[in-house]
Amino acid sequence: MKVAKFGGSSMSNEEQFRKVKSIILSDPKREVIVVSALGKRTNEDDKVTDLLYLIHAYLQHDVDWTPLWKRICGRFIQVRDLLELTFPIEKELSAIQTRLQNEKVSQDYLVSRGEYLTAQLMAEYLHYTFVDAKEVIFFDYEGEIDYEKTTQAVRSFYEQQTTLVVPGFYGANPFGKEKLLGRGGSDITGAVLAKALDAESYENWTDVSGIMMADPRIIDSPKVIEEISFRELREMAYMGANVLHEAAVFPVQEADIPIQIKNTNEPEAKGTRISNHEVEKENGLTGIAGRKDFLSITLFKRHMSDEIGFIWKAMSIFANYGISIEHIPSGIDNIGVVVSAEAIADKLFLITKELKEKLGVEEIEIIDELALISVVGGPHKELIGLSGKVLLILNQLGIRTSILSQGAQELNLIIGVANDQYETVVKGIYEGMVTAHVSGTSDGITSNS
Amino acid sequence: MKVAKFGGSSMSNEEQFRKVKSIILSDPKREVIVVSALGKRTNEDDKVTDLLYLIHAYLQHDVDWTPLWKRICGRFIQVRDLLELTFPIEKELSAIQTRLQNEKVSQDYLVSRGEYLTAQLMAEYLHYTFVDAKEVIFFDYEGEIDYEKTTQAVRSFYEQQTTLVVPGFYGANPFGKEKLLGRGGSDITGAVLAKALDAESYENWTDVSGIMMADPRIIDSPKVIEEISFRELREMAYMGANVLHEAAVFPVQEADIPIQIKNTNEPEAKGTRISNHEVEKENGLTGIAGRKDFLSITLFKRHMSDEIGFIWKAMSIFANYGISIEHIPSGIDNIGVVVSAEAIADKLFLITKELKEKLGVEEIEIIDELALISVVGGPHKELIGLSGKVLLILNQLGIRTSILSQGAQELNLIIGVANDQYETVVKGIYEGMVTAHVSGTSDGITSNS
Repeated sequence: MKVAKFGGSSMSNEEQFRKVKSIILSDPKREVIVVSALGKRTNEDDKVTDLLYLIHAYLQHDVDWTPLWKRICGRFIQVRDLLELTFPIEKELSAIQTRLQNEKVSQDYLVSRGEYLTAQLMAEYLHYTFVDAKEVIFFDYEGEIDYEKTTQAVRSFYEQQTTLVVPGFYGANPFGKEKLLGRGGSDITGAVLAKALDAESYENWTDVSGIMMADPRIIDSPKVIEEISFRELREMAYMGANVLHEAAVFPVQEADIPIQIKNTNEPEAKGTRISNHEVEKENGLTGIAGRKDFLSITLFKRHMSDEIGFIWKAMSIFANYGISIEHIPSGIDNIGVVVSAEAIADKLFLITKELKEKLGVEEIEIIDELALISVVGGPHKELIGLSGKVLLILNQLGIRTSILSQGAQELNLIIGVANDQYETVVKGIYEGMVTAHVSGTSDGITSNS
Repeated sequence: MKVAKFGGSSMSNEEQFRKVKSIILSDPKREVIVVSALGKRTNEDDKVTDLLYLIHAYLQHDVDWTPLWKRICGRFIQVRDLLELTFPIEKELSAIQTRLQNEKVSQDYLVSRGEYLTAQLMAEYLHYTFVDAKEVIFFDYEGEIDYEKTTQAVRSFYEQQTTLVVPGFYGANPFGKEKLLGRGGSDITGAVLAKALDAESYENWTDVSGIMMADPRIIDSPKVIEEISFRELREMAYMGANVLHEAAVFPVQEADIPIQIKNTNEPEAKGTRISNHEVEKENGLTGIAGRKDFLSITLFKRHMSDEIGFIWKAMSIFANYGISIEHIPSGIDNIGVVVSAEAIADKLFLITKELKEKLGVEEIEIIDELALISVVGGPHKELIGLSGKVLLILNQLGIRTSILSQGAQELNLIIGVANDQYETVVKGIYEGMVTAHVSGTSDGITSNS
């Protein structure tokens, strides 16, 4: 069986509901469906979830929230009517409204109504059984998913009836009250259910045809990555790619269940498959991600390389200030420490002072406005490695960079460039390796070896 | 003025003495001369210093040492006679012999007699003034050079007489007794005197025409490096190149005095000039050095990159075991720790156990028989950087490596290869960058950028 989650843009109106139904019915394995709340119909539209957050804010400040509430009601009623469903949505809405008028409702309860009602409509439309997330997703006292309780509950429902619709984004706290999932929302619900049911696949239906090889704000219509490993995904995500939130990946990765990213508006497109399998890529390139605003601090000290424990002592100073280290490119008698510029900001002076006073660092060189670019690769047979190709491209661009990291199997490469060269370099690497196809040999060199 | 030091091979016989004299007299600035003891005349010959060490061992074990002593005496007498000098060498030798027969002499006293007598002969031959090293090189109670006392003494001699010959390899301990310098021997004497006299140059005359670009055991007659900076020298030395001992470099580097390595047997050859000046090199390459037998330990832990202080904690474990870290190539959620295989040997199990138990490291990957190769570069204007060229060459060799370090200005590059690929890679890089000359562009790539 498969767990399929549909995001807000897949649930924005009656037309999207029809697409979703046709997708679900085309594969009988799509048994457990997770839905987000009604999303934006146009770019200018609002998500029901955002409107519900606003209502909560209005309630806090005692501002009239009924116009917003009417907009929400209108959207649900319209979908119900256009799909010719019989679900008594007015009754549900008026019950919620009564609570809003008479008691102090929690934000989690109010906001979760978007998914709750959307799932009710979808369940009837599919002739699937509605299961409230409160009955299947359980949190423990520490706010973590209680997998034992969750698994037991989900399986018990699934044993009675295999075709279920579950609202995403929330579950029940130990007191049985609605509690929202954190960042990642409904994606996490789907992942948790897939894990609990040991699904063969977790489908994540959205409005893009998969994970892109590069940031579409820099590259015009970048290619979609058809296969990516969890390792590669983590590397893309860590370096800033806009992909699934890690909390939505962790449960299925652990259970070795692949994730399939698909586009509701283009269901025939392959999308992206995420699994533990490392697939060979053309050119060895999986994708390019990056983040700006790092700072590199290079420490120089005569005969540092002969000093046992120097790096440890330097790291302890950064750790004491709560600074996370990104990379430590080391040379002979010098080490670089690459950190987030924002994180170190006002601590920089104190840290460099301590490095000089406590460790006898003789010289400190700081490079700010540094961007890190991660060229993520998969296994590849071609002789010329990822690094060689990237360096050739950078040379052609006339940009000198520092390599901060390159694993033993050339599976990925992290380079540092100036912030203002970031877009140029990402573009250059993408165009050189994807658009133009780099050839595997170079005629520019003659060697006698 | 210049301080010129001549090694044992420059002082092995009467013929070498003549070469040295002609060198010294050809430049009146060569005022303060430091000499080693008579060296090997042929490959099968023995150095006087080694024979003196042997005599000390014979004395310890009460074995007849007189045949060895006669060989030593013969060598000094022969040089004196062939150069038609008047120095009463027999009287000096017999005084030493008497002491050996009647008292328990220190090894330092006995061994230093080689330089002492050689300097006496050279002083007469040059018509320079002999100054016993005991009168100018002083150690403090911690066994370090006492620069204040040394500088004062040297300058006082130099003020009376500017042309001096000083025996290398020893000085006086705080009790006025002979004490040998450590590894680096007479080279250190020269450096200390150059610093004390603020010489314009420290000449180091030996039997090779300078520092070679690569190990001559791997590369047949490698090119000599004409100009190298102290930084580059340290990088070559740290990575195993057979160059001046650091103790012989430190005093002059600190005083910003250049070192000139010259060949007594080929005085017209340029040799190698070592200074604080970074000189642009053809191809950006200064030299290649390397060492075998490292071990790489890669630590994997989920979300390690989000954990503040992880690297610090890992480093503390290595430091507690007294292990020096060479490099820490880091990726997303993994860090590599490169160490000497010999140093970690029997501690490896304990360290990996602690890493797992204390830091929750999930997986550890060990690569042994790893060689590190340092491609040392100077500043260069060519667009294609050192790294790009080296990677192209490695690709042509069909060897995949891991880049362990590359500074921001591409001044050097440290790569890791399997021990058994070490010679092939050094050869490939040398041939690709020096013999064949790598062109600055590559036709193998087309890019639209």
